[in-house]
Amino acid sequence: MAVKFSIEGVEGLPEISRGDDLAALVAGAVDLADGDILVVTSKVVSKSEGRVVQADDREAAIAAETVRVVATREHEGGVTRIVENRQGIIGAAAGVDASNAPHGTVLLLPIDPDASARALATGIRALTGATVGVILSDTLGRPWREGQTDIAIGAAGVHVFDDLRGQADASGKPLVVTMPCVADEVAGAAELVKGKASRIPVAVVRGLGRFVGDLDLPGARSIQRPAERDLFRIGADEAYNEGYRDGFDEAQAEGPLNPAG
Amino acid sequence: MAVKFSIEGVEGLPEISRGDDLAALVAGAVDLADGDILVVTSKVVSKSEGRVVQADDREAAIAAETVRVVATREHEGGVTRIVENRQGIIGAAAGVDASNAPHGTVLLLPIDPDASARALATGIRALTGATVGVILSDTLGRPWREGQTDIAIGAAGVHVFDDLRGQADASGKPLVVTMPCVADEVAGAAELVKGKASRIPVAVVRGLGRFVGDLDLPGARSIQRPAERDLFRIGADEAYNEGYRDGFDEAQAEGPLNPAG
Repeated sequence: MAVKFSIEGVEGLPEISRGDDLAALVAGAVDLADGDILVVTSKVVSKSEGRVVQADDREAAIAAETVRVVATREHEGGVTRIVENRQGIIGAAAGVDASNAPHGTVLLLPIDPDASARALATGIRALTGATVGVILSDTLGRPWREGQTDIAIGAAGVHVFDDLRGQADASGKPLVVTMPCVADEVAGAAELVKGKASRIPVAVVRGLGRFVGDLDLPGARSIQRPAERDLFRIGADEAYNEGYRDGFDEAQAEGPLNPAG
Repeated sequence: MAVKFSIEGVEGLPEISRGDDLAALVAGAVDLADGDILVVTSKVVSKSEGRVVQADDREAAIAAETVRVVATREHEGGVTRIVENRQGIIGAAAGVDASNAPHGTVLLLPIDPDASARALATGIRALTGATVGVILSDTLGRPWREGQTDIAIGAAGVHVFDDLRGQADASGKPLVVTMPCVADEVAGAAELVKGKASRIPVAVVRGLGRFVGDLDLPGARSIQRPAERDLFRIGADEAYNEGYRDGFDEAQAEGPLNPAG
């Protein structure tokens, strides 16, 4: 087990535009070796793939990206709408975001972030000869805790989990359910050098080569818990209201003379 | 802005027991400099504080630690019970855990993790002369995503958020709501060198000194979102059932001849 690793922001990348060869740009900007993991802000992948729409079309874009509304709340600044998007990711505004987008535009997430990650990893491996992994990251809020963390929305050539189930802890007891999400932890760590206010969309992680593997390993989609197995699949208010309607209808159907149903 | 940092597991620490001077042990095990951040697995703090109970008392300990039941689900292996504990942390079994605990025992979380972090930071700063930050970490599951990540349950001498609100992105647009949770990202990164199956309960982060500050900065408790502002404050099934009962009762109170209420 490695006991040390480092994360470094990749400087000197140009502003990315539609059609840019991101694999070639990254491979040319940093020296890479076997076992390195590249963490790429999904926004630059969106830019290279032309996933940009006019800001006027923002609401329509959000609607088009939304598969399922998870929770909404009105507040002073408007409406917070937490949705599951086409990529299966739960977050605000379906990942449609104006920050770091060209003026007058908003960026959509890559259509298939795992496929984008795989294309990048394949390209960079071919150009450099180095067996690297690639994680695409995005910045998302989360239940229960304030602030955001960067998480993995795409991955290729890396084990997204450190599956310890069945192994033993230091005292010999089995670690029944322990399965740290390496990809999310690496994505969050890379945020600490990339930042939001700077132009450093790519970081390289050195020293975690034990998590690098084949390009056909499960991607970040495998991190997403299916809604039917999620205790928090919809917001508390939405669930309450759904229950209220069902309970009200049921009581009316039963009638007051037959309360036992 | 630093563009590189490293994380290293601190090797050579002994098994920790009640009453051990953790600050002295850590200060003696690793060279520290201004701006270093120590990420300490909360379990070793629990051990040094004697937060250990017999395994037979596990259920009683969970009940005593629980402030509020957030969600429960029965499954083959028993019941998953997600609760808010006395520390305000939402997780399974109120943080009461048998892994890496002495045989026949379970560990409780420190009573006040921010206070424990502050005592550690104060002690280590005094012993070494280095202005370090301290984060206490624990391993928790989360909604929507499989696996666990390490997050910050205690903090002292570090900015737990990188508060960018009001700053501009690289293209000059304001970052209205962006507030990365540095403490959680650092805790997760440290998990990658500490691991669950090894005896490395402490990691040192070098290169993120811009986040190190006064000992009276807000602790990890400030990361916890108050339930009344949380869209996912209780599980979907629990909220549905509560709504169902209320709707049913309301319809019965109104009666069939007065459906408009």
